Amino acid sequence: MSNCRQQAAGSTKLTPEEHLANITELIAQFGTWPSTESILVADALDRYLVTAVPAPYDSPRFSNSQVDGYALSQAALDRLPGSFSVGADIPAGADPALKYPQGIDPDNSGETIVPIMTGAKIPAGVAAIVRVEDAVPPEFPENTHNDGTNGTNTDASRGKPTAPRREISMAQKGQFIRQQGIDSRAGEVIVDSGEVLSPTAIAALAFQGVSTVKVRKRARVLIATGGAEVAEIGELDAEAGSAVIPDANFPMLAAQAQRYGLEPVGRVHIDDDVDSLATSLQKAIDVHQPDLVVTSGGISKGKYEVVRQLLADGDGAWFGAVAQQPGGPQGYGSFAGVPCICLPGNPVSSLVSFRLFVAPAVGLVPEPIKVISAEPLTGLSDKDQFLRARFEYSSGHVRARVVSGPGSHLLQQAVAADALVRVPAGATVNARQRLWAYPL
Amino acid sequence: MSNCRQQAAGSTKLTPEEHLANITELIAQFGTWPSTESILVADALDRYLVTAVPAPYDSPRFSNSQVDGYALSQAALDRLPGSFSVGADIPAGADPALKYPQGIDPDNSGETIVPIMTGAKIPAGVAAIVRVEDAVPPEFPENTHNDGTNGTNTDASRGKPTAPRREISMAQKGQFIRQQGIDSRAGEVIVDSGEVLSPTAIAALAFQGVSTVKVRKRARVLIATGGAEVAEIGELDAEAGSAVIPDANFPMLAAQAQRYGLEPVGRVHIDDDVDSLATSLQKAIDVHQPDLVVTSGGISKGKYEVVRQLLADGDGAWFGAVAQQPGGPQGYGSFAGVPCICLPGNPVSSLVSFRLFVAPAVGLVPEPIKVISAEPLTGLSDKDQFLRARFEYSSGHVRARVVSGPGSHLLQQAVAADALVRVPAGATVNARQRLWAYPL
Repeated sequence: MSNCRQQAAGSTKLTPEEHLANITELIAQFGTWPSTESILVADALDRYLVTAVPAPYDSPRFSNSQVDGYALSQAALDRLPGSFSVGADIPAGADPALKYPQGIDPDNSGETIVPIMTGAKIPAGVAAIVRVEDAVPPEFPENTHNDGTNGTNTDASRGKPTAPRREISMAQKGQFIRQQGIDSRAGEVIVDSGEVLSPTAIAALAFQGVSTVKVRKRARVLIATGGAEVAEIGELDAEAGSAVIPDANFPMLAAQAQRYGLEPVGRVHIDDDVDSLATSLQKAIDVHQPDLVVTSGGISKGKYEVVRQLLADGDGAWFGAVAQQPGGPQGYGSFAGVPCICLPGNPVSSLVSFRLFVAPAVGLVPEPIKVISAEPLTGLSDKDQFLRARFEYSSGHVRARVVSGPGSHLLQQAVAADALVRVPAGATVNARQRLWAYPL
Repeated sequence: MSNCRQQAAGSTKLTPEEHLANITELIAQFGTWPSTESILVADALDRYLVTAVPAPYDSPRFSNSQVDGYALSQAALDRLPGSFSVGADIPAGADPALKYPQGIDPDNSGETIVPIMTGAKIPAGVAAIVRVEDAVPPEFPENTHNDGTNGTNTDASRGKPTAPRREISMAQKGQFIRQQGIDSRAGEVIVDSGEVLSPTAIAALAFQGVSTVKVRKRARVLIATGGAEVAEIGELDAEAGSAVIPDANFPMLAAQAQRYGLEPVGRVHIDDDVDSLATSLQKAIDVHQPDLVVTSGGISKGKYEVVRQLLADGDGAWFGAVAQQPGGPQGYGSFAGVPCICLPGNPVSSLVSFRLFVAPAVGLVPEPIKVISAEPLTGLSDKDQFLRARFEYSSGHVRARVVSGPGSHLLQQAVAADALVRVPAGATVNARQRLWAYPL
């Protein structure tokens, strides 16, 4: 134990914030993370954007119709209320300059109105658009899409040529025209660096024709769990007298890694032998090339604390105590040049520690929020508690209700939790007190 | 247009709730969803559990030590404060009955205490555990793990046999023992049916040796987007005079599908021809075997509304208006026996509609929550508005602040939104008014 750079007995414990800062520093010192990659926008959901993307175009990139309706010139507007002949229509996706090279009303007569579909580009000379249902009769004439029959038509029910006409009573200048650039201007930032891409952000990028983005690579995490009392998957002797338990930590930490935007790349089983841990860790690092290793267990004061025994002499190592419960014993170090974050082995301690120290350092976590405690709580005298809790929303308030006892072995009771609520050391919390809650 | 089962002009529009109920009914009527599958617990993050899982064992399944320390018998407790010889240790994972078949103090002498590691099974005869650091000297003796040297030891620094002893001043009966079943009892439900599996739930299942769970299959969604003004990917003519725009809806809807627990399985491009839509839809259904089709665009009053034209005569079809903005025009139907949900084509309308109607019907969405409006808002006279907004948490309150104008073409402005805030028809909202917000 003389090898371990533990904190001296009685020394001040680190705050959770200090420990997170140290881990962030460790990653910066040893890590290959963060590196970046360019990926397709379509594959970029929930990825962290590294470079701000400016819009190449105005949005909308051309003025277009907001509705299915009739385009009116200023001269037509001036004739309202009135009756109009109906010109050749403008479908969405067609360049209206082909049908109306000089605009919809080159002689400023105001005689003819032009059917235009939702999303269609506005041709020259349009002052307003009237919805199809606001004209009389309230639907489009047939067959106005053939340019050659502009202004004339065959009424199928009567079998003879007619000139389709529509009555329009009123319109406001500019109505139902989506002006070019009304949403945003070319050069404006669509999504800023540091943002995490939502479906809406992906749509906004795609809408601007942006097909690839530069994002952070997901941190590749090798997860080492076990301890002699923990059975490898499939190995468990389930008989009543057994002193071993199944490994809950590997599936849990792998799921947390996914939830917080990391990529679990491999697994190492820890038994209680330092040399075999060194061998299997080296092998897994060679195979999986992780950005970091996360271990669970083997760091406290027992006699078989192989993680601490393996790493405590290595570069940058620290093993000691953080002033919190659960998750008091913590550690970090490096192995084969790869940073290692060493969590305590109780499942709940591991869960809390991964959320508080691994995810914020190399992943994506929601910000803590101030909540109202749903019940009176009494803190511990000398350390902050992170109790498993559930958010409750009502009438504009957000509360957190504790769902589990404080013990770090109370995993089953923690299942309903979607937050950790932090009870400061020495605090006596009443119903009006605000606490920080960390969404899980 | 005579084919369309549209609502009669002036008929009462559906509420969003009525439309969602109709879509849920459509899925039940035509759908192959929900079906179930058994998957590995380790792969089950964010999946919807179909069958409640009862615990096969107590948790913890055997009483074990909460700390690295010394196990004391009742007779030893009765001797406190006192000095004790140190017996052979109990590592985690070992059956203590092998070293202590008759318990740690078969003769009730209280002379000997037994080193025991965190997580190790408690042998018979243990009344309390004292932390290693609370004994004097505050660390374990060497070499107590060899059963044959029980009670005697070789002090390496002096080279002659010694009997290691420890002074202990006080202990409370039962301390640092995690009692079997204290977390939960065999037979209690670990995770209930209808729950979505979190990392903690996965850990609790794995901890009980549960390796597979029965979950809902993810709904397989075929996404059809386009319209003649929308270019297929890679096809866009970006020159200034172009009247076409890139397809924002496919990547957006595919990302929403992923976010809400659906599986986007394929894509159909909609152009403005009914027959070619029928052909490509049939082909994609044959290939991808979707549980449902989601279309975007082609359902309103224009002349090229191919989705409506294709589906309006089919089984169970409905095309009409929902009293909301954006997303007023809505529709549904079936094609080749597959239910089709038909969303309006504007990106923001599609976004809102997918969140309100597709995700809740076949996916997983967070519950709406009551929030405080961050600003005065005035509703429309005749329909509910779903404004793009951002949650703001402060001091136990949750507010929603609108980030975008109301227009359904204001996609770029919606990028910052993480919620839809619902402004009821006719409402005048002041700063104290509570509104429903739908997390995106």
